[in-house]
Amino acid sequence: MNLCLLFGGKSYEHEISIVSAIALKKLLPKIKHFVFLDSNHNFYLIPKEQMQSKFFSTKSYEKTQKIYPKKDGFYTRTLFGEKPLNLPVILNLIHGGDGEDGTLASLLDFYGIPYIGPRNPACVLSYDKELIKGFAASRGVKCLAHRVLYRNDLVPSDLEFPIIIKPARLGSSLGIQVVESQENLQYALDSAFEYDEKVIIEPFIEGIKEYNLAGFKGKDGIQFSFIEEPEKSKFLDFEKKYLDFSRTSNAKEAEISDALKQALQESFTRLYNNAFEGALIRCDFFIKDNDCYLNEINPVPGSLANYLFTDFKSALESLLLALPKPSDIKVDYALLHQIQFAKGK
Amino acid sequence: MNLCLLFGGKSYEHEISIVSAIALKKLLPKIKHFVFLDSNHNFYLIPKEQMQSKFFSTKSYEKTQKIYPKKDGFYTRTLFGEKPLNLPVILNLIHGGDGEDGTLASLLDFYGIPYIGPRNPACVLSYDKELIKGFAASRGVKCLAHRVLYRNDLVPSDLEFPIIIKPARLGSSLGIQVVESQENLQYALDSAFEYDEKVIIEPFIEGIKEYNLAGFKGKDGIQFSFIEEPEKSKFLDFEKKYLDFSRTSNAKEAEISDALKQALQESFTRLYNNAFEGALIRCDFFIKDNDCYLNEINPVPGSLANYLFTDFKSALESLLLALPKPSDIKVDYALLHQIQFAKGK
Repeated sequence: MNLCLLFGGKSYEHEISIVSAIALKKLLPKIKHFVFLDSNHNFYLIPKEQMQSKFFSTKSYEKTQKIYPKKDGFYTRTLFGEKPLNLPVILNLIHGGDGEDGTLASLLDFYGIPYIGPRNPACVLSYDKELIKGFAASRGVKCLAHRVLYRNDLVPSDLEFPIIIKPARLGSSLGIQVVESQENLQYALDSAFEYDEKVIIEPFIEGIKEYNLAGFKGKDGIQFSFIEEPEKSKFLDFEKKYLDFSRTSNAKEAEISDALKQALQESFTRLYNNAFEGALIRCDFFIKDNDCYLNEINPVPGSLANYLFTDFKSALESLLLALPKPSDIKVDYALLHQIQFAKGK
Repeated sequence: MNLCLLFGGKSYEHEISIVSAIALKKLLPKIKHFVFLDSNHNFYLIPKEQMQSKFFSTKSYEKTQKIYPKKDGFYTRTLFGEKPLNLPVILNLIHGGDGEDGTLASLLDFYGIPYIGPRNPACVLSYDKELIKGFAASRGVKCLAHRVLYRNDLVPSDLEFPIIIKPARLGSSLGIQVVESQENLQYALDSAFEYDEKVIIEPFIEGIKEYNLAGFKGKDGIQFSFIEEPEKSKFLDFEKKYLDFSRTSNAKEAEISDALKQALQESFTRLYNNAFEGALIRCDFFIKDNDCYLNEINPVPGSLANYLFTDFKSALESLLLALPKPSDIKVDYALLHQIQFAKGK
């Protein structure tokens, strides 16, 4: 399978994206092309043998070939001009900013560069924890109650604790805190506001059941992964992140009833259709009183949730055959001709 | 005032954007820089004296200087390399696709090029007539009831006529139709689906009062235009469009009560704050049973709604001083260093 991994990005999840890309390189040894976006928004073509974390953390990547996107593909400068690189289809592996906020989707679509990944509107909706709730509601999928606060809003005094506070637009667990009482609220809000000027407050439900389901629309319609009940965190923050994003061996399938499995798949379908085409996404659900609630959608999940698929390679191949077609708009200047004619010019 | 008008775009409103730019050139004679984006996504620097509709409709623009965006600005190729153009702040005047769907906002933000115009999330929300209703609801602003149909959905048989059918993601009046009865529904839907695979159906209320209010966040907070009651269309489609987008003389202020004026301004503020910063937008409202309803938000209104401001030039100057700052994210590779240390490498 011929793909080009795009990773890095100007984002709090820059490093996690590197970890993701290294994991996928191991899992899909036939992939030969790797494009790194550094935090200054420069693109580099990384030789396969350099795909190791040290190559990036020591900034050795800066000595490799600088490239840039333009119409129909990436290019590199030559002595007297430039030449196209003819890279294969891009696989967007940039988590958080740039990759999940729609910036790169817009850029790639603008230049007509084909890619696997969420399109701009899908990014904007899933990147913001308030917007995704509105979107889910419009598709008939429930979410937990929530409240939105902006940086300069008054600290609310009418909350029922415990609550969980999350920066509204951040893919990772940074800035997320459980708050048990009013006394700790201000500090927790301050910490969350370090990452975003908008914060979401939800009830924190101890021990709530969580299930993760990935999937995509392939050549034969929507294809689901198996469902995992994620392990509750028992690691240090950085270890947990590393382990989450570097997973390459299959997860354990959750032991759930057929009815629950069907309910999760139906919710996934409602959310995916006419919104996430072109992407392999992971939906994280809660189960409360036997009802499905959407927690969040990861439109570029860590290591592309490969560990949830029994045949990840075939999954990507099927997705590749079902990428959305760019819109075809032709301008014929009929209106301007009419105006000129009407004005007698 | 030093600004660079960006207009054109790959969009059904490409020509209207040219009309808009020509209108603003007349209104703001000190503007010297004009960048045209053609429907093939090539950028051209247009000499001021060529800013006439024929220059574009005859494709003479193709002989002018081709330019391209990269880090911190637009560049042009030279014999042995390239050189920066040092253009002033961009004024996004691209209506519809590219300009209002978030593509160019993403592009300009990615390259760190400052601009007046809606940011990517604001674009995605206001470009989709379903999403903007959800957004308005979350801000406590009412909208008319609606129904969403996708191209392959069954034709509904339970509608109350008359209805109005609109392609969900199109800035202009293209594909919009009033339908009086079930017999004409299929044809109207087919016409709308020519422009978008998603269509919005709303009740059509004959003679409903409409009011337009523009505004922006400037250096001293939100600044409103005066309010206009738009004339109901009595022109041919192309004439009306041309007249709408080429307006440069002040509109007539609507004669409304202070209470209504306040209600409209309050709705505007709720919609604008923490969403449309950086843009001068026009909100189109309905009044029904003495209540404000949002009809739509134009985040890049025709000729930038200059005709609603008594001092348009000062308005732009104030907006220029209040453009959103790009986020500053630094990557220090702490996580990768931790991982390497933990692994003993």
